[in-house]
Amino acid sequence: MEVYLDNNATTMVDPKVFEEMKPFFTQKYGNPNSLHRFGAGVHPKMMEALNYLYEGIGASDEDDIIITANATEANNWILKSTWIDKILNGNKKQIITSEVEHPTITATCRFLQTQGVDVVFLQVNDEGIISAKSVEDAITKDTALVSIMWANNETGKIFPIKEIGKICKDKGVLFHSDATQAIGKVLVDVRDFNVDFLSFSAHKFHGPKGVGGLYIKEGLELTPLLHGGEQMGGKRAGTVDVASLVGMGYAMHLATNKEALAYENTFVKSLRDKLENEILKIPDTLLIGGAKNRTPNTSLISIKGVEGEAMLWDLNQNFIGASTGSACASEDLEANPVMSAIGNDSELAHTGIRFSLSRFNTKEEITYATQKILTAIKRLRGISSSYAYTPKNHKSQL
Amino acid sequence: MEVYLDNNATTMVDPKVFEEMKPFFTQKYGNPNSLHRFGAGVHPKMMEALNYLYEGIGASDEDDIIITANATEANNWILKSTWIDKILNGNKKQIITSEVEHPTITATCRFLQTQGVDVVFLQVNDEGIISAKSVEDAITKDTALVSIMWANNETGKIFPIKEIGKICKDKGVLFHSDATQAIGKVLVDVRDFNVDFLSFSAHKFHGPKGVGGLYIKEGLELTPLLHGGEQMGGKRAGTVDVASLVGMGYAMHLATNKEALAYENTFVKSLRDKLENEILKIPDTLLIGGAKNRTPNTSLISIKGVEGEAMLWDLNQNFIGASTGSACASEDLEANPVMSAIGNDSELAHTGIRFSLSRFNTKEEITYATQKILTAIKRLRGISSSYAYTPKNHKSQL
Repeated sequence: MEVYLDNNATTMVDPKVFEEMKPFFTQKYGNPNSLHRFGAGVHPKMMEALNYLYEGIGASDEDDIIITANATEANNWILKSTWIDKILNGNKKQIITSEVEHPTITATCRFLQTQGVDVVFLQVNDEGIISAKSVEDAITKDTALVSIMWANNETGKIFPIKEIGKICKDKGVLFHSDATQAIGKVLVDVRDFNVDFLSFSAHKFHGPKGVGGLYIKEGLELTPLLHGGEQMGGKRAGTVDVASLVGMGYAMHLATNKEALAYENTFVKSLRDKLENEILKIPDTLLIGGAKNRTPNTSLISIKGVEGEAMLWDLNQNFIGASTGSACASEDLEANPVMSAIGNDSELAHTGIRFSLSRFNTKEEITYATQKILTAIKRLRGISSSYAYTPKNHKSQL
Repeated sequence: MEVYLDNNATTMVDPKVFEEMKPFFTQKYGNPNSLHRFGAGVHPKMMEALNYLYEGIGASDEDDIIITANATEANNWILKSTWIDKILNGNKKQIITSEVEHPTITATCRFLQTQGVDVVFLQVNDEGIISAKSVEDAITKDTALVSIMWANNETGKIFPIKEIGKICKDKGVLFHSDATQAIGKVLVDVRDFNVDFLSFSAHKFHGPKGVGGLYIKEGLELTPLLHGGEQMGGKRAGTVDVASLVGMGYAMHLATNKEALAYENTFVKSLRDKLENEILKIPDTLLIGGAKNRTPNTSLISIKGVEGEAMLWDLNQNFIGASTGSACASEDLEANPVMSAIGNDSELAHTGIRFSLSRFNTKEEITYATQKILTAIKRLRGISSSYAYTPKNHKSQL
């Protein structure tokens, strides 16, 4: 049995999504900007896909959803256009974000610091959350943008987007949220939550890799990151990747309709809880960030004495895919400093393992995986010098 | 019969390419940066694809080929990193390019002008070519980059890249070439031609849309356009779109091996010449830029008295896809000012039609298309007021 529990890194393309994409490689291959039937013939499915995207995130017809290569491009775009439009060529100075954003935000912000931008990296509280109050306190007259993720990729913790959206609206500051880990897991509604810009990525909700989007609220203008032709109303040049757009649209529909969200928050959550509870029964294990306010598919657990990488190796031998929560895994680009940010135990950052489920996981898979995980913990603790020499209770240290 | 003659706008994905891509949607879907078998399992095919790319453009192992969303991203990246690295944070001031580059170059340069960059737009000569001499004359001590396309998208005219490369090398100026329209049509060899940076796009050589690349010569560094994770050696963040990379690599192999280039320059060229010669037999028709130094698949023809859009309409009714060479076709993003740049006849810019063939075209298709084109010219001239009222010989005006 193969069990894929790394859906926060990437997901399988839903076979139904792939069926929708197929005609657009070798049959309906026209450039959508061409005037002839080869080009115009792809328009109806593109429109359908765009409608699914607007529905999926609660956008209004007057808003823009611009198709990008991924959330990385969307995140770079909003930050760099803010720099160029509001700071380099404007009178603002500051961008407010958090220390636990995805690297596409934090690394871009660190680059902007080299260009003289004042970046405030807000810290998470002991529940791994950025409080709305901390955002409110950080905003000044120099603030050009607040960028706070909707849900964290490591812990699944959901941030108080509605409250932050209201604060930004009241203070007249633009608000961007990276919703890459939220789409299809919790309700994402840009209008209801007062979000001005929103990033997302298809391959996190069973769409294809290499395509994402940036939502831009009605009336807001951004200098393009990709200048060129008049595609996407001149906001993002480049021939539209029709197959990927069609796939992303349908994947959004399959992931965000009411029944799908309900399934995620009942069945998928029950599988996650079952797996998590079995592991947490073992002494000296810790659920990072706690159980409240989380996406239903994610569990980041510290297992004292068990190196994350060693655990991954044991699981891999058993055809189970998971991820370390540790920034030490240099190959693992999903890693972020959330664990060290939350814990006051330096060992914590080395002992995290993240399980992230999807609607394609089954009860049988979770039963199998749980058994293999428990066996791995026993084996790895048996050969762990650090665990043998540390009789203290792990939880009591935190 | 359907005849697709708009391959400079986009191409059909080669069915063999699509077969290579298929497993990477619903089966081998792991994130290549993940440590487990789901991620590592995609590495061999990614390596094979990268090897095909290196072979295809004559890159050395020490060079970089960075996968991007398209040539648009590659072109924006080289220009904007030049601005940030060499001008905003350096002591250079100038970028030299041409007036007939693709909009991804010209529009980006116009944006950079708003940021104080001195952009020189070189003019084409009466053969539609940027001469190496004009590049040499334009270079000053303030020049940060020369960016000249390998082959023009409208006319197919091939620019003197080897000579320009030598001039730039001798003068110590960095040289970028957008080879989007050259790959698979003529020999592109970055090392032999002294090119420092090269852009390309898979969907112009029977690969998928939504993926391209930027070649970066050994030892050269660019500030990323997409900051984030450590993918592509930290040079371009974002989860690698494995299916698209595998498709682009195989498409590059199929398009650039010796036999393929020979087929393009014999059989495809013979079809293009047959079509072109039949049209040019008609009075008052003109091959824009002349016959010399052209990609073997492209023909841009002005037909006096025949509006490009009207011609497209007639052809579309007959299931033939082509393109106007006219910038008036606002929907047609391939349009560029090359026609008005070459011609001294203002009518010229309205009467161009571009035929761009591929290895998938057949003799039967060209026979059918030629007949329909000749019929369309007759019909449209019959109802053309401008042609009826202009008895002068068209060619003699130029």
